[in-house]
Parts: sequence; C-alpha cells; structure tokens
Amino acid sequence: MAVKNLTLEEINKLVGGKLEGNPSVVIKGVSGIKEAGEGDITFLANPRYEALIETSKASAIITSKQTKKDVSKPVIRVENPSLAFAKVVSFMFQDERKLPEGIHTTAILGKGIDLGKNVSLGPHVVVEDNAKIGENTIICSGTFIGYKAVIGPDVLIYPNVTIREKTKISNRVIVHSGSVIGSDGFGFEEVAGAHQKIPQVGIVVIEEDVEIGACVTIDRARFGKTVIGRGTKIDNLVQIAHNVVIGENSIVCAHTGISGSAVLGKNVILAGQVGVVGHIELGDNVIVGAQAGVTKSVPKNTFVVGSPAKPHNISKKIFAGWAKLPELIKEFAELKEKVERLTQKGLKSGKSKDNKE
Amino acid sequence: MAVKNLTLEEINKLVGGKLEGNPSVVIKGVSGIKEAGEGDITFLANPRYEALIETSKASAIITSKQTKKDVSKPVIRVENPSLAFAKVVSFMFQDERKLPEGIHTTAILGKGIDLGKNVSLGPHVVVEDNAKIGENTIICSGTFIGYKAVIGPDVLIYPNVTIREKTKISNRVIVHSGSVIGSDGFGFEEVAGAHQKIPQVGIVVIEEDVEIGACVTIDRARFGKTVIGRGTKIDNLVQIAHNVVIGENSIVCAHTGISGSAVLGKNVILAGQVGVVGHIELGDNVIVGAQAGVTKSVPKNTFVVGSPAKPHNISKKIFAGWAKLPELIKEFAELKEKVERLTQKGLKSGKSKDNKE
Amino acid sequence: MAVKNLTLEEINKLVGGKLEGNPSVVIKGVSGIKEAGEGDITFLANPRYEALIETSKASAIITSKQTKKDVSKPVIRVENPSLAFAKVVSFMFQDERKLPEGIHTTAILGKGIDLGKNVSLGPHVVVEDNAKIGENTIICSGTFIGYKAVIGPDVLIYPNVTIREKTKISNRVIVHSGSVIGSDGFGFEEVAGAHQKIPQVGIVVIEEDVEIGACVTIDRARFGKTVIGRGTKIDNLVQIAHNVVIGENSIVCAHTGISGSAVLGKNVILAGQVGVVGHIELGDNVIVGAQAGVTKSVPKNTFVVGSPAKPHNISKKIFAGWAKLPELIKEFAELKEKVERLTQKGLKSGKSKDNKE
Repeated sequence: MAVKNLTLEEINKLVGGKLEGNPSVVIKGVSGIKEAGEGDITFLANPRYEALIETSKASAIITSKQTKKDVSKPVIRVENPSLAFAKVVSFMFQDERKLPEGIHTTAILGKGIDLGKNVSLGPHVVVEDNAKIGENTIICSGTFIGYKAVIGPDVLIYPNVTIREKTKISNRVIVHSGSVIGSDGFGFEEVAGAHQKIPQVGIVVIEEDVEIGACVTIDRARFGKTVIGRGTKIDNLVQIAHNVVIGENSIVCAHTGISGSAVLGKNVILAGQVGVVGHIELGDNVIVGAQAGVTKSVPKNTFVVGSPAKPHNISKKIFAGWAKLPELIKEFAELKEKVERLTQKGLKSGKSKDNKE
Repeated sequence: MAVKNLTLEEINKLVGGKLEGNPSVVIKGVSGIKEAGEGDITFLANPRYEALIETSKASAIITSKQTKKDVSKPVIRVENPSLAFAKVVSFMFQDERKLPEGIHTTAILGKGIDLGKNVSLGPHVVVEDNAKIGENTIICSGTFIGYKAVIGPDVLIYPNVTIREKTKISNRVIVHSGSVIGSDGFGFEEVAGAHQKIPQVGIVVIEEDVEIGACVTIDRARFGKTVIGRGTKIDNLVQIAHNVVIGENSIVCAHTGISGSAVLGKNVILAGQVGVVGHIELGDNVIVGAQAGVTKSVPKNTFVVGSPAKPHNISKKIFAGWAKLPELIKEFAELKEKVERLTQKGLKSGKSKDNKE
Repeated sequence: MAVKNLTLEEINKLVGGKLEGNPSVVIKGVSGIKEAGEGDITFLANPRYEALIETSKASAIITSKQTKKDVSKPVIRVENPSLAFAKVVSFMFQDERKLPEGIHTTAILGKGIDLGKNVSLGPHVVVEDNAKIGENTIICSGTFIGYKAVIGPDVLIYPNVTIREKTKISNRVIVHSGSVIGSDGFGFEEVAGAHQKIPQVGIVVIEEDVEIGACVTIDRARFGKTVIGRGTKIDNLVQIAHNVVIGENSIVCAHTGISGSAVLGKNVILAGQVGVVGHIELGDNVIVGAQAGVTKSVPKNTFVVGSPAKPHNISKKIFAGWAKLPELIKEFAELKEKVERLTQKGLKSGKSKDNKE
C-alpha cells in the first residue's frame, strides 16, 4: 500500500513514546504483528503474546512499558499501544482516502437550509427544505437528507445513505453506506382482517460519537423518539425498531434486531444475530451472546446466552446437557430395563418369601 | 414537535366520536398514554389498562365506549380508539413531511415511458425505457425504476430504492429506502467444480396495499414470478428468495429469510429472524415464533416455534425440558448409582439365598 | 412474457443437442416443468422425476440421454440439460433487459481515471479520482466507485451500489443493488469507558467470477485485505467482517454473518442465517446448516449444524433427543419413584431378613 513514509523518530514524536532503537529507520507500512514484513511497523497490546515480538518480521513495534525489555528490534513504548498505533495508521494513510470538499454542483438543496461553515456535499446529494447541517460535516455522494433533519458538526455520512425527515444526528457521528435512518416503524392495526397503517410521526435521535455501520435500519418512533445513546457503535445490517432506546457506549454487532420499545442501558454489548423482543429492558453492562433470543428483561451486569436467553452459567450447563442427551436417553433405557428386572426379581423373591411365609 | 393545533371539538368531528368534556380545549401534540403531557391527546384501546386514564398527564384521551365512565379529564369515545387516534395523528402531522411534487429537473426518463397524471419524481430518479407509472405515484430521490417496470397508482417509493426491470408493483404500495426488488435469484448449477449462473428471467409482483420496509431484498423468479400478496406487510432487512409466494395480509418481521419457492398462505405471521427453507408450504394463519427455523411444511392455523420448528405446545415443553436438563443429568447419575447398589444388594441377597438353598 | 420466438430446430442448434420430434415447432416461452404450458420449452435434469415429462404441458423438453425414450412430445437430449436450458433462456430473453450503454451525461468522473474500452456508466454514477475500470464493464445508475478503486473487465454492477476507496474487483464479477463493499471494519478500542475507533486502512479484494447479492456488506480489512475467493457466490443481506478470507467456489446464503478474521476454505457452503465467530478456520468443503452458530474451527469435509454447531450426525441425535426430552423427564420421575419403592422394599425385606437372622 502506498503510504507516507516516516522515520521511527517521527513516529515516536507523533505518539509521544519512548523509542528504543535506531531513530532513522524508515517505516513504509503498517500491519498486524503476524503479517508484518520488512519496513512495516506493528504493535503489541497484550503482554501475554510478547513472544511474537521476536518472531515478527516487522521493522519496529509499538508496545507498552510492561512488555519484555531487551528486544532485538526497535521498540516504541507508550501507555496504550493500540491507540498509539491507530494514530500512526491514521497519519500514514491520511492521503489514502478522498472525501468530498465543498458543495458539488450536482447537489440539490431545498429552501431554508442552514449550512454550517465548511460543509461538504458530494455529487447528487439531496438536502430537503429546512434541514440544518453543522460545521465541517461531510455528506458523500447520493445521500439523502430529509426535510427538517438536523445534522450536527463534524459528522461523516458515506455515499448512498438515507436520512429521513426530522432525524437528529449529533456531533461526530459516522454513518456508513446503504443505511436508512428514520424509516417508518412497523406499526399496523388489524381492521376487518386487513392491516391498517398506524402513522409513525416520531423521530430518530442519534447522539454524539455514535458510529452506524452499512445497511443498518433505524426506524422513527410512532411518536416520541428512537434514541441511540452517545458513543454507541452499531455494526452492519442491524435493525432497530421504533421507540427503541439504547444507552451510552453500547455495542450492537451485525444482524442483531431490537424490537419496538425495548430499552437498553449503558455499556450493553449485543453480539451478532441477537434478537431482542419488544417492550423489555436490558440493564447497564448487560452482555448478550451471539444468536441469543432475549425474551425477558435482563437485570444489569448480567451475561445471557441461548435462545431463549438465560444467564450464561445456566445456558452453559444446558448446552453441555444437550451434548450428553443422546447418551442419557440410551442409558436411561438401559436403567429402566435394569429396574424392571430388579422389580421382577423383587417380586419373585417377594413372592417366594410370601410363599414361604 | 410543531404540529397543527386543534380543539377537542375539531378532533371529535374528525373521528366521529362522542366527546365528554370541554370542546374548546386546545390540543397541541400527540403521545403515548404514559409519555403524554399537558396539551397532548392520547388514546387507550385496551380497557385492561384503564387505570392509566387517570394517571396520564394528557389533556384528552380517545378511548372506547367500554372503558370507565366519569373520567376526570376530557374523553372522546369511538368504536376503534387506535384507528381514530391514527386519523388524528395523520391530520395533525400532515404538513410535517414533504414529499416530492412534480418531475424534478434532474430526474432521468428513458423512452416510451407511460406516466400517469400527477406523478412525482424526486431529484436524480432514474426511470428506464418503457416503464409505466400510475397516477399520483411518488418516487423519491435517487430511486431507480428499471426497464418495463410497471408501478401502479398511489404508490409511494422512498429515496434510494432499486426496482429492477419488469417488476410489477400494484396500487397503494409503499416501499421504504434501501430496498431492492427484482434482483436476480440465487441460482447456480455446478459444472466441473464451478458454480454456473442460471439466468433468472422471471419477475416480482407486489400486489395492492403491500408495505415493504427498509433494506428489504425480494429476488425475481427464475421464471414465472415471486409474489407478495395483497395487504401483506414486510419489515426491514427481510430476504425473500426467487419464486416465493406470500398470500394476502401476511406479516413478515425484520431479518426473516424465506428460501426459494416457499409458498405462504394468507394471514401468516413470521416473527423476527425466522428462517423458512425452500419448497415448503405454510398454510393460512400459520404463526412462526421469533428465530424459528421452519424445515417442513406447516398445516394451516398452526403456531410453531423453535429451530427446528415444532408446534408451540411441543416446543414449549422442550424449552422447559432444557431448563431441567442439567438437574436431570445429575439426578440420573445418582439414580444409576442407587440402582447399582440395589442390584449389588439384590445379588448378594440372591446369592445368600442361593447359598441357603 | 414477451420473448424472442424460436423453432425447436434453432434451439437444438443453439445447445448442440439431439432433437427427437418436429423441428418446426415454435417455442414462445420458458418455464419450469410443472408450470409450463402450450408453447413453452422446459427441462428435466434429474431422471428420477421423468414421470413429469408426460404430465408436463410444455411443447418441448430438454433432457439428458439417460431419461426415458419414446416420449410423446419433442425432446432435445444434451449432456447437461440444466445448462443447456440456461443457454436457451439467456438467448430468448436477451432483449428483455436493458443495461446502460456508454457514459451517461450525468455520470461524474474525477481526475486520473483509467477507463477501459466500451465501459458503460449509467445516470448519476460517481467515479472518484484515480479509479480504474476495465473493458466492457457496466456500472448502473447511482452507483459509487471510490478513490483508487480498481474494477476489472466484464464486471456488472447494478444500481445504487457503493464500492469504497481502493477496493479491488476482478473480472466478470457481478454485484447486485444496495450492496456496500469496503465499508470500515467494526474495530474499537476501549479507552476510559468510551469506544475509540481503530482506523481500518486495509482493502477488500473480490476475485474473478464472484457474484454478490443485494444489500450485502463486506468490510475492508483493518490492514491487509478482506478476500472473496474466485467463483464464490454470496446471497442477499450477508455480512462479511474485516479481514475475513473466503476460498474459491464457496456459497454463502442469505443473512449469514462471518465475523472478523475468520478464514474459509474452498467449496465451503454456508446455508442461510449462519453465524461464524471471529478468528476461526473452516476447512475445504465444509458445509454449515441453516441457522447454525459456528463457534470453533471446523476440519475440512465436515458437515455441521446447530447452535453451537456440531457435526451433523451428533446434532441430529441431539435434535432427536430434544423431541424425546419432555417424555424422558416424565419417565425419569416415574422410574425414580419406582426405585424409591424398590429401595424401601429392599430395606424392609433386608430388615426383616436381618430380624430373622
């Protein structure tokens, strides 16, 4: 990959670290510690794997003060190797991506739009009437910003996203391509055998520092609002139904679906392909294992797995039980027969006793 | 939310209800019964929750003739409170959404297109040759209507939808953003270890009053047609494979996948994350629970859950059995030992008897 | 469906078969053997179903040399009836689809773009700086091709696709609408309770003859590359995380999610709604059943099902065990009671014996 070359001295200055080794070594790329080759810089965060420092072919390693001393290759020691490395990567690759700059001539702007300073709108972007877009925000090509939507400053919205009317997106949010925010909630009322549409006039609120993956769908509330809390990160192809509220700093992995009016606390983690039924609550720090089906509210600090989901220690025993079940059934049949024989014998012995008496 | 203010008298006239209370009270917003505040109107459909009528902070409540009398706040009584409320919501919020009007100058129209009266095409809409679009239909920005597609009257297609060639969409259908209708079915033939593409030359037919969520994929038939029956409602991120036929007034919840050539009856309900294998039939009124995996045809009026799916009463017992399984395994080991001891004793006692005889 | 009419003689020449019957019969359509009517041609690949040849209303049938002789309607015999039929279908329907031709005036091209001969770009396509597009490639309307992306020759990308920067797509790849290739991997580092974004600077590589369904998401690598191997076919709404590597000629069905850094071999088949956890390996020819959750590496040539996934023969017994579990629990309680009575009796009989002695 073509990147900006840097010396170890420059990298060390960038991350504010302590360099052990030749400061003039030139770094040309970045890589994982196992895949790294000549000219690459890599990092090691977990001292458990410090044996990899010597086997790695990287030309330099960013690591912590805790990992081994006397390394045979250049090392930069920092507080948080992972973050320091992220900083190096961002710097080296800063010219490797091009985002729109300025308002493209093919962008369509409605009336009464409030555009902050330095807003960029890519080709074929559509911004409807009375929308507001904050400073430095970048909206990439083909994205639609609906009527009266409010997009904060420093937001990045990738190509071909749909932000429906009156959605509120706060500072520094990132939305990946193909996502749809503010589509109608799935609400119908049965009338004479047909499903009558219930108007969905609420909104979606995305708080600060949220990141939303590709092809994610977040439905607007019936009334009131669907809320994604500050700092929460949502992976690709996730479905968030109307009136869901997700707390701060939660993680929602790919293909997870959260049904209407469910309320999630802070620091909740939903692994991939999880389903959460409607109108329940998941407390702070709840963790839900992959493919789990959460059918009841979960108290805070609980780790649940399975479908239907149960606390991890219980589900673990159930899964272990499944593995033993075929053998159990076989052994049960044998035991039943054994007891049958014992009963027969007992009867006979009983009878013979009876006879004797 | 800025809405159109209405007096209770006006609202009562709109829904054709019976007003108990001051007709000149001004309503400024709508809300759920628990969230409602001063100036809001709300509704209560289920008499079971009628205690909420008094605790709600709403300024007025739409409810049925069956719920409690002598309410301390204004009440409008109607046949169907939910629908009446929907009507109020639609009316109050009618100016709160803006849809395209007329043909935008950046819409691209092919040759031989048949446009009905009053059709609206948003910015950057593409309509290919020989497509037909019915009266009053609204196609929002960035949506693609393929060659020879036929879109009925009063249809609403949101931004960034893809309708592939020859798809037929009937009256009053709603399609949400990001959805793809008429993509190729997933059909391959293995030839010498490689997967050879089988042409998919059928179409998709969407009947009247269907609503399709965001990021839904409905594949065209291999030949013949994939059909979504009249009045059926499809939630976000649903996959419908080639040659599937869904009957009237069915409900398909988010993340559900229906495999090729499956046939669903009328009034079928598939909850979220359900999987249906190919070439099976689900009869009328079948209900499938969330995350179920339907591997065999299901007779009409059956409620199935679990993966593999079984009738609800059976799966319920299986789920209860799982919960007891770890204890069962423990108790089984104990019982086995007990029987072993009994057998030993029996043998000894038998032996001693033998010795005696 | 309007198609190109052909005589059986023409069709026989097209597929290089052996015609039995009237060469001047005119074929007007194609269909499945059960649905076919007067004027249709159909095919039968599997001799097991050869009874259908006589009951079908088709005017002619393409089949193999192995199926029954003396058919009462015209038959064309070929090596591979399925493929031969596909050829006929493609030929008859070749004018039934219209793809963009040439560079549309509304396509936006950046600087330094390398366009091969005969490239077609539909309306509102955006190609960013320094991208490269190979000969005969067709990019349909609204699709975005990012900075420095490399698209091979004979590629077909449907409307409203997003190909992010530096993605590499090889010869003859097909990408369906709504898909997003090269979005950021889901990588965060927790710092003081917040999730800090880890830059994702790797790429996605799509090898020759891959087909990607609608609304599929394939994330770019953290560094290095996410790879979809030659000839692999991916169904709709699939999620492929960063640094995943899929081998050649694999099949990934709808709604399947593959987590970060998982490595799949050649000829792997993942059925629908499968989940694969991160950092594991699935060997060549592995088959994973629908809705399975693969939590550990799977050796080659293994068929696994269930969640957590186990070899098919084991999971089959577990599923059978579930069905028996409610009865087992009931019978266990009975057996326990029986043993209890036996023990009581044994004790009494033992005691009486003791008393006697």
